[in-house]
Amino acid sequence: MEAYGPCLGHMRATAPLVHNITNYVAMNVMANVLLASGASPAMVHAREEVVEFAGLAQALSVNIGTLDPAWSDAMQMAARAMGAAGRPWVLDPVGVGATHFRQDICARLLDLKPTVIRGNASEILALAGIGAKGRGADSADPVEAAEVAARDLALRTGATVAVSGPVDFVTDGKDAARVANGHAFMPLVTALGCSLNGVIAAFLVGQPTLRATVAALAYFGLAGEQAAHRATGPGSFAVAFVDALHAVSPDDLTRGARVIAA
Amino acid sequence: MEAYGPCLGHMRATAPLVHNITNYVAMNVMANVLLASGASPAMVHAREEVVEFAGLAQALSVNIGTLDPAWSDAMQMAARAMGAAGRPWVLDPVGVGATHFRQDICARLLDLKPTVIRGNASEILALAGIGAKGRGADSADPVEAAEVAARDLALRTGATVAVSGPVDFVTDGKDAARVANGHAFMPLVTALGCSLNGVIAAFLVGQPTLRATVAALAYFGLAGEQAAHRATGPGSFAVAFVDALHAVSPDDLTRGARVIAA
Amino acid sequence: MEAYGPCLGHMRATAPLVHNITNYVAMNVMANVLLASGASPAMVHAREEVVEFAGLAQALSVNIGTLDPAWSDAMQMAARAMGAAGRPWVLDPVGVGATHFRQDICARLLDLKPTVIRGNASEILALAGIGAKGRGADSADPVEAAEVAARDLALRTGATVAVSGPVDFVTDGKDAARVANGHAFMPLVTALGCSLNGVIAAFLVGQPTLRATVAALAYFGLAGEQAAHRATGPGSFAVAFVDALHAVSPDDLTRGARVIAA
Repeated sequence: MEAYGPCLGHMRATAPLVHNITNYVAMNVMANVLLASGASPAMVHAREEVVEFAGLAQALSVNIGTLDPAWSDAMQMAARAMGAAGRPWVLDPVGVGATHFRQDICARLLDLKPTVIRGNASEILALAGIGAKGRGADSADPVEAAEVAARDLALRTGATVAVSGPVDFVTDGKDAARVANGHAFMPLVTALGCSLNGVIAAFLVGQPTLRATVAALAYFGLAGEQAAHRATGPGSFAVAFVDALHAVSPDDLTRGARVIAA
Repeated sequence: MEAYGPCLGHMRATAPLVHNITNYVAMNVMANVLLASGASPAMVHAREEVVEFAGLAQALSVNIGTLDPAWSDAMQMAARAMGAAGRPWVLDPVGVGATHFRQDICARLLDLKPTVIRGNASEILALAGIGAKGRGADSADPVEAAEVAARDLALRTGATVAVSGPVDFVTDGKDAARVANGHAFMPLVTALGCSLNGVIAAFLVGQPTLRATVAALAYFGLAGEQAAHRATGPGSFAVAFVDALHAVSPDDLTRGARVIAA
Repeated sequence: MEAYGPCLGHMRATAPLVHNITNYVAMNVMANVLLASGASPAMVHAREEVVEFAGLAQALSVNIGTLDPAWSDAMQMAARAMGAAGRPWVLDPVGVGATHFRQDICARLLDLKPTVIRGNASEILALAGIGAKGRGADSADPVEAAEVAARDLALRTGATVAVSGPVDFVTDGKDAARVANGHAFMPLVTALGCSLNGVIAAFLVGQPTLRATVAALAYFGLAGEQAAHRATGPGSFAVAFVDALHAVSPDDLTRGARVIAA
């Protein structure tokens, strides 16, 4: 069994500056999640500075949650800068199935070669369907339903693709793994998925993509499991979760990760 | 005495997708409040997609808190789409008395016939005064001072109007009720009023307007009462409040609602 | 030893309306911090209303965290209005060393004579270097490294300058003080520095600038110390901190302030 603790240890030793272009709902949570995890977050989106700032960052996360055209431009500018510099960036295609506007921006972002794409099953299905079968799924789908789409998307784009759910599925198109960590309170707290993408970006710095992504998912889910012991509802869970992200050690992660090859 | 628990049960069974165009301060709280209550929130504001997205949603809440011209356009586009589809939408006229910009956008939104308008007494007084006596009230006023204005506003616009305060007042212009649930910590936590409007929108789906609005106010206030038992200040209150929204059952609401005809 | 409790008492008795033009990450936290402290926050940024709204406010805080050109205009318009009215305003030069866009807007804001400037050591060093030695420091620097820069900046701009860190340094160019209150969890919670600037703005209303700034820093740090007793990580710390801001009394502040002349 592979040990994932060293991936967490490496991320904390690096304490990477993660540039996030994310939605308004997630910004505060994502910053606190990254700080508690051991990374250094920054939120910068103006076209006037986004490329200059990306030059300072070690990784980028892009999230289309509360999209508008100016932000869409900034996302592409920053993603292009990271790609040119050979630095990793992560795409979160929030609600991509819902509108054509989202599908258009996602098509452009896919052309810029994200290092990792993470979404729920409906989002991955919708994303895989862009240019192939149109609008994709708007509704909730089980993780299993998106596994073939995830492999196809990975092969087509070169990205590692993660499908979030009760058991996550991660693939680079060849290899794949399932991550069983997590807790049922997590989907009841807004922006945890968004925040996870920032954590994945932090783990990617200086580490192999598939392994780093799996480690980030296991770490995040394990913190959720620990938080649940102290929670009486989604409000207290959200608080305990940030504490747990800070408290989980590399050894805890090695012991607690529930990863199986797929 | 009327039972309000079934209104909560109906909302949770429906789990409506609520489209929110709200302010930056409220977005995260509002999403968590709706998730904890049992609804499905989405925040979408770009003019490029707001109408398409409104077509997917079962209800809409519009809040003018951190307004700017692009958002003002989006609010009108989404409200018009909901009206055309016969779906409910709720207006929160935050700080409408403070600037002419807010009065202008509120006048336009009133023309689009909100299903429910909810604000504090000063906001309802200011809103009722638009087109009649100018700027309206900027300062804090007691709920009682806004009751006549609320009835007038309801009769003029066709909306059900709710005035928030220690005891809320709700009227559709003919019938009226007072809701005494709530706790003194609530005004010390930002964006709870904003979030309440999302909850009202969720309750409106498939239920009669006045009854659903009263039920939402009683549910929200009852959760506040339960949260206060576990709080030592406004920070811990906010956390316990989200837990309580999740924990309050239909039976709790039927037993705990403090509603009287007015 | 000077008593700082009366400064807190004065702020709470005044309950000033503080107008904040701040970043998306900080908005919710800042509103809750100001409410818990006893002030009345408002977030307003549209060019169409920002001057009219500034006319209603007793103090202003400006924070360049998630900057863009429209917000930059609004900041200057509001700062000019406060200056013309003789009302205090506070500048938070977030990440000013990172990009030229930030340096340009800060140069413009400095011309509008902020009453107080508060930042970390790197930010104050970068700000002091604008127009003198170019880009300034991007990286973390100890407070001591910024003391000379802080005095120079104060003398050049007329502002009182506060450098945040484990021990804060505050100077108006002639007099100076160090404030030792605070806790190591504070930098692990996002937007606390941003929120502090709103609290400083609230304390400035009707009180001498240097003394009010020192009192605000001591109050904020003391609340952090109290919160730490109830926290098991940065998540529970953030919650306990808001409770503590509400609970700290003027007498607590007089007893607990750790201020020494510098």
